Amino acid sequence: MVSTHPVAFLKGHGTENDFVILPDPAGELRLSTETVARLCDRRAGVGGDGLLRVVRSAAHPEAREMASEAEWFMDYRNGDGSLAEMCGNGLRVFAYHLVRSGLVPAGDLAVATRAGVRHVRASASGGDAAGRAADGAVTVDMGRAKQLDGAVTVTVGDRSWPAYALDLGNPHAVVFVDELADAGALRTAPAVAPVTTFPDGVNVEFVVRRGERHIALRVHERGAGETRSCGTGACAAMVAAARRDGADPALDGSGVTYTVDVPGGRLVIAEEADGRIVMTGPAVIVAEGSLNAGQFGF
Amino acid sequence: MVSTHPVAFLKGHGTENDFVILPDPAGELRLSTETVARLCDRRAGVGGDGLLRVVRSAAHPEAREMASEAEWFMDYRNGDGSLAEMCGNGLRVFAYHLVRSGLVPAGDLAVATRAGVRHVRASASGGDAAGRAADGAVTVDMGRAKQLDGAVTVTVGDRSWPAYALDLGNPHAVVFVDELADAGALRTAPAVAPVTTFPDGVNVEFVVRRGERHIALRVHERGAGETRSCGTGACAAMVAAARRDGADPALDGSGVTYTVDVPGGRLVIAEEADGRIVMTGPAVIVAEGSLNAGQFGF
Repeated sequence: MVSTHPVAFLKGHGTENDFVILPDPAGELRLSTETVARLCDRRAGVGGDGLLRVVRSAAHPEAREMASEAEWFMDYRNGDGSLAEMCGNGLRVFAYHLVRSGLVPAGDLAVATRAGVRHVRASASGGDAAGRAADGAVTVDMGRAKQLDGAVTVTVGDRSWPAYALDLGNPHAVVFVDELADAGALRTAPAVAPVTTFPDGVNVEFVVRRGERHIALRVHERGAGETRSCGTGACAAMVAAARRDGADPALDGSGVTYTVDVPGGRLVIAEEADGRIVMTGPAVIVAEGSLNAGQFGF
Repeated sequence: MVSTHPVAFLKGHGTENDFVILPDPAGELRLSTETVARLCDRRAGVGGDGLLRVVRSAAHPEAREMASEAEWFMDYRNGDGSLAEMCGNGLRVFAYHLVRSGLVPAGDLAVATRAGVRHVRASASGGDAAGRAADGAVTVDMGRAKQLDGAVTVTVGDRSWPAYALDLGNPHAVVFVDELADAGALRTAPAVAPVTTFPDGVNVEFVVRRGERHIALRVHERGAGETRSCGTGACAAMVAAARRDGADPALDGSGVTYTVDVPGGRLVIAEEADGRIVMTGPAVIVAEGSLNAGQFGF
């Protein structure tokens, strides 16, 4: 039975990592791999790097046992329709949507994800004086970074750099370059050695220093190529920059904060005294309405 | 003064050539180059190959003198915000939107464009039994093809083919290949010689025969790279195929019809006895709603 009634949607982005958002509080939508892929298709569908279904935790089998702690479950899917555990930029957009829609009050919020309950602080939003932002600053607890053992080298063309190897729930190799252009066109994945350090592939960040506690980066995401933003990649770059600058909360007992510019915007990332990485950045809703359900096989 | 009220939009496509549609009957929207580019941005905006503003001809200075003949003006913009004259796939989507919205009855329709008044026949649409289509078959008069003088050669890597050089309002070089894969990755423009035949650049179509009066093609559009569909390119390929098959309405006095498969779908293209090219294909609306106007500088 194909649904013919309109299905509500929104489109939004966090530092230009963009998402189709499907409000589905009771978990009633039939969301096949094909439907997700078609929604995220940039020409035949709405278009997005991924999809965020907004479901009450109590209404979803994967989230039911988190329901007492987190009312809402972020059912995140990759653009190809596959399941995904977490997405830092997506979590900002998800939390901002909840606040903007009046589903939760602004402030501290727990969100259920496939990687467990995540803690978020979402502003009530706004729209700045120029009427342009209408975006929410959202702070997300990204967990702790883990340094991986062994020396790692990243190579692009005939240039190589020593890398910081970090795990933020997913693997990263961070290198410091003189200019962001040193990474080249990034049409293919940079070579990372030894491959044994990253058996499941690796995201690579190319980082330059912009000033005191201020960096900028480009990122090549495994499976996706160069992107406008990668939340965990920005956090990995921040941690590598802190270590390079001689700051380490585990040794210093105090936190450190960096401004991190990604191609799609600006993030502020802190490593707290207890080692937790906390990322603050914009979340934007650009459009909302209804889908032509018949086109997507709902 | 920045508008803060919601602005209505739709997103649609014709053989996966996709558009942001802005209903603006009275021509009241302020539509700067930056606003269009931002709306068509696939990550920070809605995303589209181009934008179709739907304005009454009488309300637009560029269309006012066509108003007695064509009630509606297709104010078409390229994705980068620049003005464009015409777009065959866009015209199908535009006409289908008019019928679907009840702005005009299904059937024959004249549409004002920057290339003059174009004649269209739009179905009332539907949604097929599978509930999947909900798209309209729209027929567009694409004008006449003009054969360009001189021998032209298209080269990709170490392979070259003799080309048909045709003008459909824009320039095309059409070659017949054994397999569509022979065109390679098409990450860069194919070499076309002599360049003097195409002083403003050229679109290149790689065509294979699929059966009796049935071809398939890939297209490299100047300025855009390989795309999912190019209306004039499909028409140029159809005319080249007809000549290659020995059919020429100018000599035969009768029309000829081809099925033309593009990567984004299927078109049926006829060259009428009087030489006019008539293209029929799908038009789909995938979503509609309101824009966060503040994000786009309206």
